[in-house]
Amino acid sequence: MELLDALNWRYATKKFDSTKKVDQSLVNKIVEAARLAPTSSGLQPFELFVITNQELKNKLVSVSFDQQIVADCSHLLVFAAWDNYTAERIDQIYALTTTEREQPADRYSAYTDRLKNLYLQKPAEQNFTHAAHQAFISLGFAIAEAASLKVDATPVGGFIPAEVDKLLNLTEKGLKSVVLLPIGYRDEANDWLANLKKVRNPMDKFMTLID
Amino acid sequence: MELLDALNWRYATKKFDSTKKVDQSLVNKIVEAARLAPTSSGLQPFELFVITNQELKNKLVSVSFDQQIVADCSHLLVFAAWDNYTAERIDQIYALTTTEREQPADRYSAYTDRLKNLYLQKPAEQNFTHAAHQAFISLGFAIAEAASLKVDATPVGGFIPAEVDKLLNLTEKGLKSVVLLPIGYRDEANDWLANLKKVRNPMDKFMTLID
Repeated sequence: MELLDALNWRYATKKFDSTKKVDQSLVNKIVEAARLAPTSSGLQPFELFVITNQELKNKLVSVSFDQQIVADCSHLLVFAAWDNYTAERIDQIYALTTTEREQPADRYSAYTDRLKNLYLQKPAEQNFTHAAHQAFISLGFAIAEAASLKVDATPVGGFIPAEVDKLLNLTEKGLKSVVLLPIGYRDEANDWLANLKKVRNPMDKFMTLID
Repeated sequence: MELLDALNWRYATKKFDSTKKVDQSLVNKIVEAARLAPTSSGLQPFELFVITNQELKNKLVSVSFDQQIVADCSHLLVFAAWDNYTAERIDQIYALTTTEREQPADRYSAYTDRLKNLYLQKPAEQNFTHAAHQAFISLGFAIAEAASLKVDATPVGGFIPAEVDKLLNLTEKGLKSVVLLPIGYRDEANDWLANLKKVRNPMDKFMTLID
């Protein structure tokens, strides 16, 4: 199947069949796609939490404006971004990079110095926003991979970040929740959106060619 | 090819072969993937500009910290998000939705009222940030589709937004530039990054399972 067919097949599932679980091998592929996403300067400033614990999923519903898909899904993915850029975090990623590439430890020193000069003077909130952008690219990869595996996935932005952070102990890890992604299988008979047409702006409104 | 193989194949191309152009049929597929991306409440708060004009690409290099890939790429995609949510924009999308789905015009009135109550009281900057998040999901779709077509694509966040906005006349359209995506074909012999290992945090650091 071509990816475009998969992207046309997918939709924002509003009702999951809570009895159907996504096979772990498929979950692993979706997480791997998220992991492979590009990030600004390669800093990978986010982590992913994969929740199957039903009690926790139920609690998360109550801080997600009672969206039942958060509990009914097979696996709940939570993307959480760095609350700030720090010298230590930047150095850690580039230590990994030089090790993996078998390069001299100082190979990227001039570059990481520039990154530190750029980010460390900015307010934490601005750096978090920048980190969150990277998490959204990764979310796109995860949704695309899920669709290619015929796994339903519905991005959820409607939740109270501070409450999700508390339930997942994110603050102590220097992370803040960005977006949720329930994955699972649609309960087609009970999903009002399942058979409605996907609506997008027509191409001539969406795209402008400058040649 | 499985999507994961394509995502492993891709990398942030640092040197494009400026003599190789991406076939229009492939560009169309990449733009279509971007168009199909999900957006919060289905608002589709961004547009895409596809630039082949060499003079304009050259000018954009000068406001992108001299990143030559912006000029050497085959097509430069620019994602631009709404500068704010407005009642008119929300109504316009839902007018399209009801028309396309052959539903009564007031089918989503209660819902769009809630959206207006939510967004119209917020500062423009906060709404733009929210709209930009959607553009990043779409960017993820575009990169994934490009990879599946063996087209190289390098997201570029390093540019001066106000200057890009000026060059593309975005302000008068109520848009602000979010991210650039040069696409094309790698000049492998002259790209220092082409044959270096892709480095990502190991899975046990990237992902936490809560079961």
